[in-house]
Amino acid sequence: MRIRFQPYGVRAEAEAGATILQVAQQAGVEIEAVCGGRGTCGKCRVIARGPLGPMTEREQDALSPTEVEQGYRLACQAVALGDVDVVIPEESRLSRVSILSAGASEEIELDPWVRRIPLRLSAATLEDQLPDLENVQRAAEATLGHRLVLTLGALQQLPSALRQDGGQLTLIQVDDEVVMAHAGAGPERLLGVAFDIGTTTIVGYLLDLETGEQLAVSSRLNPQTRYGDDVVSRIAHAGTPEGLRALQQAVLGAMQAIIAADTAEIGAAPRDVLAVVAVGNTTMHHLLLGIDPTALAQAPYVPVATPALRLRACELPLDVYPDAAIWLLPNIAGWVGADTVGVILSSRLYQQDELGLAIDIGTNGEMALGSRERLLTCSTAAGPAFEGAQISCGMRAADGAIDRVEIDHDVHWHTIGEAQPRGVCGSGLVDLVAGMLKSGVLHPSGRIEAPETLIEAGRPKLARRIVGEGRSRQLLLVEPNDGAGGRGLTITQRDVRELQLAKGAIRAGIEILLRELGASADDVRVVYLAGAFGNYISPESALTIGLMPSLPNARLVPIGNAAGTGARMALLSRAELENATRILEHVRYLELSGRPDFQAHFAEAMLF
Amino acid sequence: MRIRFQPYGVRAEAEAGATILQVAQQAGVEIEAVCGGRGTCGKCRVIARGPLGPMTEREQDALSPTEVEQGYRLACQAVALGDVDVVIPEESRLSRVSILSAGASEEIELDPWVRRIPLRLSAATLEDQLPDLENVQRAAEATLGHRLVLTLGALQQLPSALRQDGGQLTLIQVDDEVVMAHAGAGPERLLGVAFDIGTTTIVGYLLDLETGEQLAVSSRLNPQTRYGDDVVSRIAHAGTPEGLRALQQAVLGAMQAIIAADTAEIGAAPRDVLAVVAVGNTTMHHLLLGIDPTALAQAPYVPVATPALRLRACELPLDVYPDAAIWLLPNIAGWVGADTVGVILSSRLYQQDELGLAIDIGTNGEMALGSRERLLTCSTAAGPAFEGAQISCGMRAADGAIDRVEIDHDVHWHTIGEAQPRGVCGSGLVDLVAGMLKSGVLHPSGRIEAPETLIEAGRPKLARRIVGEGRSRQLLLVEPNDGAGGRGLTITQRDVRELQLAKGAIRAGIEILLRELGASADDVRVVYLAGAFGNYISPESALTIGLMPSLPNARLVPIGNAAGTGARMALLSRAELENATRILEHVRYLELSGRPDFQAHFAEAMLF
Repeated sequence: MRIRFQPYGVRAEAEAGATILQVAQQAGVEIEAVCGGRGTCGKCRVIARGPLGPMTEREQDALSPTEVEQGYRLACQAVALGDVDVVIPEESRLSRVSILSAGASEEIELDPWVRRIPLRLSAATLEDQLPDLENVQRAAEATLGHRLVLTLGALQQLPSALRQDGGQLTLIQVDDEVVMAHAGAGPERLLGVAFDIGTTTIVGYLLDLETGEQLAVSSRLNPQTRYGDDVVSRIAHAGTPEGLRALQQAVLGAMQAIIAADTAEIGAAPRDVLAVVAVGNTTMHHLLLGIDPTALAQAPYVPVATPALRLRACELPLDVYPDAAIWLLPNIAGWVGADTVGVILSSRLYQQDELGLAIDIGTNGEMALGSRERLLTCSTAAGPAFEGAQISCGMRAADGAIDRVEIDHDVHWHTIGEAQPRGVCGSGLVDLVAGMLKSGVLHPSGRIEAPETLIEAGRPKLARRIVGEGRSRQLLLVEPNDGAGGRGLTITQRDVRELQLAKGAIRAGIEILLRELGASADDVRVVYLAGAFGNYISPESALTIGLMPSLPNARLVPIGNAAGTGARMALLSRAELENATRILEHVRYLELSGRPDFQAHFAEAMLF
Repeated sequence: MRIRFQPYGVRAEAEAGATILQVAQQAGVEIEAVCGGRGTCGKCRVIARGPLGPMTEREQDALSPTEVEQGYRLACQAVALGDVDVVIPEESRLSRVSILSAGASEEIELDPWVRRIPLRLSAATLEDQLPDLENVQRAAEATLGHRLVLTLGALQQLPSALRQDGGQLTLIQVDDEVVMAHAGAGPERLLGVAFDIGTTTIVGYLLDLETGEQLAVSSRLNPQTRYGDDVVSRIAHAGTPEGLRALQQAVLGAMQAIIAADTAEIGAAPRDVLAVVAVGNTTMHHLLLGIDPTALAQAPYVPVATPALRLRACELPLDVYPDAAIWLLPNIAGWVGADTVGVILSSRLYQQDELGLAIDIGTNGEMALGSRERLLTCSTAAGPAFEGAQISCGMRAADGAIDRVEIDHDVHWHTIGEAQPRGVCGSGLVDLVAGMLKSGVLHPSGRIEAPETLIEAGRPKLARRIVGEGRSRQLLLVEPNDGAGGRGLTITQRDVRELQLAKGAIRAGIEILLRELGASADDVRVVYLAGAFGNYISPESALTIGLMPSLPNARLVPIGNAAGTGARMALLSRAELENATRILEHVRYLELSGRPDFQAHFAEAMLF
């Protein structure tokens, strides 16, 4: 029994008696299940088609007659009895840090750099003692107009491939190398994996390189986090050869696990993977390659290598097809890496006539401003606050995170998974501070007002939420009896200052990019918000807190995991792979740390 | 204490109290020592200079006053007390299958393809955040006029190399790849190993790639012999993946052992070896690469791949420098391999105006005829008889082998090492048959005459040596009480027939080459005799038995292990490496097996 999960394109085997939720969890497909699959929360609604066990009582309670009619089931209750197609609707997808399934792979033109070369060879004779390789070369010249380069692995396969099927054989070419010689038509599918190697999360997309179809996607926490949450502590750990090796092994191990999970989902093996494209920030890039990143953390903050690199899998080593190509997209600078190249690639910023701004706020905040004419980029050490780090009540966007806040006469909030509130994630924090500003809880300088001031302003409920004085003054967001383990949740004056630093850095970066480009805020026509944060942040709140300047003529476009999308595009298209290198030549990096004007902008931008 | 052995250029450490012979044996330097080092045979004479222990009684017995004056010592008696220079004179070299020390390395122009690129880099600044790699590229463009390609290994070394010595660093380039980045001036020496991978013996020459100096040489029996002495039985064994793997592992193991021995001799390590060039016949080539050679043994006898191949060491794998280049010279055809290319390369046959013939009789007999205008080559399955195989009294050229025979009224012989006769090696066999012909023991048809015929001819002593009738008639070469373990040594009618087949094949090959080239025997100006056999065979005897046609205008030039010399030349010179490929384009291979004229020539050439 096979279950196919849409929109991810993941196929998984189902054991007899397993629920759809169990199969999904084993296959790495994330479905909302707040109650842990006990059938009580009703969150794991999916549309399932195919032979299924009967509706349970719990499903009958949870689903409306219309939903039943539309084919809705609870994934935790429905048991597959045969091949089933499952569509996971938007609202049932677990993590809001979800992978955008509508990747650019559907939009780009396929221009495969992994491809089949079918050849029909005639047999050698005593009169024409054609060596096998020369036999191939003659046929290639006749068919393709040029000779081929074969790896040793392909040469080793050649004599048997050539003689098994009457001279009918298929070569598999990766870039300019023939890496496989196969009798007949060759393997069923040509597979590749695109990686987005984030500081926190590593995502791997398994693609069919001939159709562009996304076959599976898996993610893992970057196991390097055990050596530190942020890049700076990892760079410090990489200062010794052993530390560097441990960090490299960690990321390789996670990539290997993702490849294993992805390929297992379609009944393939890691050795079937012929191509890999990876993006990540410059530190992730260096650590993956076993290159000492120490210089990244010390002025003048230089990377060891920026160009796109092509390796063979056996060089890393990654246990895929031994002659598989591993492409690493280029880095722009020490603190603007291949992930930003992926964002620029997938947003098409570098090809557009109109002026656009792309912002990727992950663990760091990188941004690019420009058009086909000119493109500038910079980085600010701004991100962690938006991922919940250094914020007393901060947490990642996961179950129980407050992701939406509204403040009128009182404070209202919403949590991910509608679970008991456990903390505040980035989008909630921006909403919260924006609401505090609009309601007068926060002075434009960033000071939390005293209760008296709020009483004077006619906001007694808000006034009651203010406790403490000076730097320890805080706003009670969730009352102790309202969840959060009886402790309540507060945002402190200090938290507000952290957010001010972070948003000030990003705002100052944008201002400097505009100035360097000789453009004004009015000229910006489009803002691409990349990353999970970009997908969920309220643009209105972002403007309220001044994360961005007012860009009156710009439309805001969330582009999801644009770095990963860039990697997928490069995996499917030689032209896009080359575009990545073109971006490196096109873009200019601004180092902010040495600039006096950055300090001035930064000081100003910290105010609300 | 270090002992330097000339003419091999081998240096070895001596432990206190060790004799020169012991040090030589540990270092793989071969010195004659028939008595096993007991001081009784007096064969291990060497000229030794430096602090040595006093002369022993045995040395005083064995050496003449003149010899003592010239610095002769017995290697088995002389103990080194400090650094000693040892010259091993011709007569004390153990095996007559010795490596020619006067290699072409002294004659060719060095054109290194492994070289140092010293660079002085300036430090990056905040204003010019030069990535390390770009820093290198700018300096390379300024110095060399072009950018460089760095391997991942070199990139990994770059950040520390760049910062250790104030920006003074040395890159090591192998072919077009920078494989190493080293602070300061880089490693003391750049090392490479040239391999001649024979069916029977593997020889590895360690060379200094910058000076061309030969630093060490070691040889090992090809451990594939455990799967069969000849190539055909090894091809059969390679018919299964396990068999193929075992054969590949065997040759790789021997190469690794040779590299270890060679590098140990100069206090270096296998990881210091940056380049390897290997030649061998086509079967050895395929087995080394793990390529199934089955098609070589079945009509139409095609190889899988003929062009020169460049691999990285990690692809085989060979445990040298991981990014070291392994070059395999091209094969010409299934039965004329890179070893013959080495012979053509080092004999310069392909560059000469005059018509030349090169013959390499090893386990097979390959030959090439031509000049810079045209070059033809062919192979005959002729060799084994000349290496002692399929001959009842045959043996390899080693101690106790009869290597010279003269027949007048009786039979006279000489053995290698002047030891008790154990058998007859190739050169002895040719002498023997030539002597039998000239003395009338052998009829021109190849029939051993009856004793009566010899008595009639006035050769009673020879007549007494003839015993038996018909196909089992034989000539008693060594009488039972004259050594050979009391059994005596005989050459049988059958042995003569084997030799007739072998020499007939070679002779027929030469005739066909002449005819195909439209040349006559008179046109040949030089004959290069390659291989150990070529070094020791008596040209007169060879002509007498008709191994070669009469070539009245040709000079005979023994060129020793010309295949290995070719490998050494390619290791030291890019031009020679490219010449090897040019030879492949220049030479035409003649397949003899399908030709009716070969059969005719062969039948005729079998007669004396």
